[in-house]
Amino acid sequence: MSDLASRIAVLEDLAAIRDLVARYGPLADAGDAAGAAALWTEDGIYDVGGFGIFRGRAAIAGLLEGEAHQALLAQGVAHVMNPPVIDLDGDHADAISYSCVLRHDAGAWHPHRVSANRWTLVRTAAGWRIGARVNRLLDGDAAARALF
Amino acid sequence: MSDLASRIAVLEDLAAIRDLVARYGPLADAGDAAGAAALWTEDGIYDVGGFGIFRGRAAIAGLLEGEAHQALLAQGVAHVMNPPVIDLDGDHADAISYSCVLRHDAGAWHPHRVSANRWTLVRTAAGWRIGARVNRLLDGDAAARALF
Amino acid sequence: MSDLASRIAVLEDLAAIRDLVARYGPLADAGDAAGAAALWTEDGIYDVGGFGIFRGRAAIAGLLEGEAHQALLAQGVAHVMNPPVIDLDGDHADAISYSCVLRHDAGAWHPHRVSANRWTLVRTAAGWRIGARVNRLLDGDAAARALF
Repeated sequence: MSDLASRIAVLEDLAAIRDLVARYGPLADAGDAAGAAALWTEDGIYDVGGFGIFRGRAAIAGLLEGEAHQALLAQGVAHVMNPPVIDLDGDHADAISYSCVLRHDAGAWHPHRVSANRWTLVRTAAGWRIGARVNRLLDGDAAARALF
Repeated sequence: MSDLASRIAVLEDLAAIRDLVARYGPLADAGDAAGAAALWTEDGIYDVGGFGIFRGRAAIAGLLEGEAHQALLAQGVAHVMNPPVIDLDGDHADAISYSCVLRHDAGAWHPHRVSANRWTLVRTAAGWRIGARVNRLLDGDAAARALF
Repeated sequence: MSDLASRIAVLEDLAAIRDLVARYGPLADAGDAAGAAALWTEDGIYDVGGFGIFRGRAAIAGLLEGEAHQALLAQGVAHVMNPPVIDLDGDHADAISYSCVLRHDAGAWHPHRVSANRWTLVRTAAGWRIGARVNRLLDGDAAARALF
């Protein structure tokens, strides 16, 4: 691969990873549990602070089909992702970002969960996927600060 | 166009579209109604949940010159856009994103409108412009979820 | 430099600047004062609305080591940056963006500071750094609107 082609490939990888991270919120908030889970690898991990560790797409889809997420959807919710910081290394990348869950209540919205996220991203035959996402509430606990 | 050049052109288009979406907030919050309206095509549409459908730059500028927006400017407001998910197809693109209007009141800020947005973007002689932006409050109504 | 190479270089600069702006929040919220200060040039300026003007890395690190920031860290805080609008001009760039400081209190988060930011960015031998960042609260004052 030429030098120019490899520089383009890096930019394409960064764009694909930004896209992957940005897709989670709209899929979760549309109630598309299978679509959101498919952002992960088959055996991907979603470790959600306060909820537990979900392994594999079926478990992740199950989380989004569960009572807590469905109640948020009925009430009105936005899972807002901010621009990640990406550290790309060939077929693997690490990224950190904030996520903010805004819950609707009586004509206003309230930040319900504000978290640090660490993403492990892997290139697969089908494109970039989430190998693991670790999420910790930024509530003063050292665990969230340690993710950053 | 060479393969490398066409790959670069795609990345340039994505960057231009990210830039276009990111420009709305600062122009709206600076009170530059004409500048914000100029992000749309001449006959572009801004369909704002709860406010109505505004067709053409004059109508969109009029919305921002109207009482509701001017009251927000006087009070303090941030129209925050999050990273969009972009689906690029030649001279046309669709994008989805969140927007969050934070209203200042008495030394604090409150999420006043949290919305799903669907953008139809078109390449014009002057660069990418908004053909249509549809905005729906994420208040539990199915209309916003359907945008995603 | 070939035309293709120069187009790639522009995209790389935009990616590097997006990365630079996105890094501030996680470093600040991890309590890494020196790491956050190192995003600036040696003599860089951070002009923080309501706090004063901090000149040079030691002063910027001092701000983050100070009582106000340390109290936020203990309580739980997210310094969330949104996608900037970047105006690139060779080895210099201007950017504007929103920042939102979400403060944790009793199981919920509250937008504590919502600001307009204007960034002056410079290419150095070590990569892009912040020459100056001016931050003004979007509280209805004309100073913040003027930044945009």
